[in-house]
Amino acid sequence: MKAVVLFSGGKDSALTTLLLEPFFDQLELITFSFGQDQAWKVAASVAGQLGHPHKRIVFDKSVLDEALKILLSMGRPNDALNYVHSVAVETLAQECEFVADGTRRDDMAPKMSYEDIRSMEDRLRMQYLRPLGGLGGKTIRIMASEYLEFEEYLSEKYPASDFEVGLRYALIERHGQKEVDRIFPKNHTHTKVVRRKRFVQEIERKKDQAC
Amino acid sequence: MKAVVLFSGGKDSALTTLLLEPFFDQLELITFSFGQDQAWKVAASVAGQLGHPHKRIVFDKSVLDEALKILLSMGRPNDALNYVHSVAVETLAQECEFVADGTRRDDMAPKMSYEDIRSMEDRLRMQYLRPLGGLGGKTIRIMASEYLEFEEYLSEKYPASDFEVGLRYALIERHGQKEVDRIFPKNHTHTKVVRRKRFVQEIERKKDQAC
Repeated sequence: MKAVVLFSGGKDSALTTLLLEPFFDQLELITFSFGQDQAWKVAASVAGQLGHPHKRIVFDKSVLDEALKILLSMGRPNDALNYVHSVAVETLAQECEFVADGTRRDDMAPKMSYEDIRSMEDRLRMQYLRPLGGLGGKTIRIMASEYLEFEEYLSEKYPASDFEVGLRYALIERHGQKEVDRIFPKNHTHTKVVRRKRFVQEIERKKDQAC
Repeated sequence: MKAVVLFSGGKDSALTTLLLEPFFDQLELITFSFGQDQAWKVAASVAGQLGHPHKRIVFDKSVLDEALKILLSMGRPNDALNYVHSVAVETLAQECEFVADGTRRDDMAPKMSYEDIRSMEDRLRMQYLRPLGGLGGKTIRIMASEYLEFEEYLSEKYPASDFEVGLRYALIERHGQKEVDRIFPKNHTHTKVVRRKRFVQEIERKKDQAC
């Protein structure tokens, strides 16, 4: 059984991967990129550290155009983040029944409503997995620390390849730093996984009586 | 690091346990009981199968009184389920910083609002973990099946020790089958884990470079 994971190279999508590992025969880590910045290479390298195959998918140019249009008109990032996230999830749903991401309980965006999730699952005959959807930020940090070394950087340093990092980069390229300062919060950070500290693996199958 | 898990002996709280296993040094599985029915013994036996210590806690008599009062006045189970669930979680929060349960994305009750969760976490200085909070029913069934054999029974057979099973039992005892038929849905089922099929364990700690 295979699942694909929307993967930035940060601690959240990496912890998502670790949580799912024991339950799926194959995980493929997918990083979406807008095609300009090189942050997806960080994600590819972290995927290698975690021990899973990685793929980069470049969004169609129209997706970036639309996302920038939403950013500029709304003046805040949430709607644009929700838009690119839903395009990414629906793109993956064409390939794989199980599509996971690292969105957290406390995240404001990207965030799909319960109704939208159920509708997407029914429409595309897929299952959308948010293994961090019931966990708070402190719990996630502690659980991730058990297996991962990670560092925190300002998002403007492009530490990993999440949608916010990518949109900031594209916005600067086309519209300059002033628009980024207007639309995105200051001091937003993203983590970057440095290495995996240990592995969990199945060591025995007890066919009869467990314990 | 220790976490306690609200545990019924069904597949949801068992999968919750399996998801957390690699991340906590110690898990203790806790079953709350209203003191009359013996369904908690099923949970204790399943906990043994899973390989974790188990504890039964009997609710204070006033909790059952209050829950039955809510059931009878509301004429539907959700508010009573939310009430006993919050008493259980807050009781565990006195003992342990990390309190987990097997409530699912698609569950209607028990279900705490986001605001109530954050308020409880701040007030009691604890972390509330819902590892199934971002997973749909089909995904949960498939993931649980990787490690667990489980069977499904009508809740009126008291297959495991969840709050609905316990409240149905107490309601029959005090107010008769007619009130159960009025208040609870017909054909509600609960799963009971039969055995654990396999174990996942850490096999190596790679101190330096992983992969």
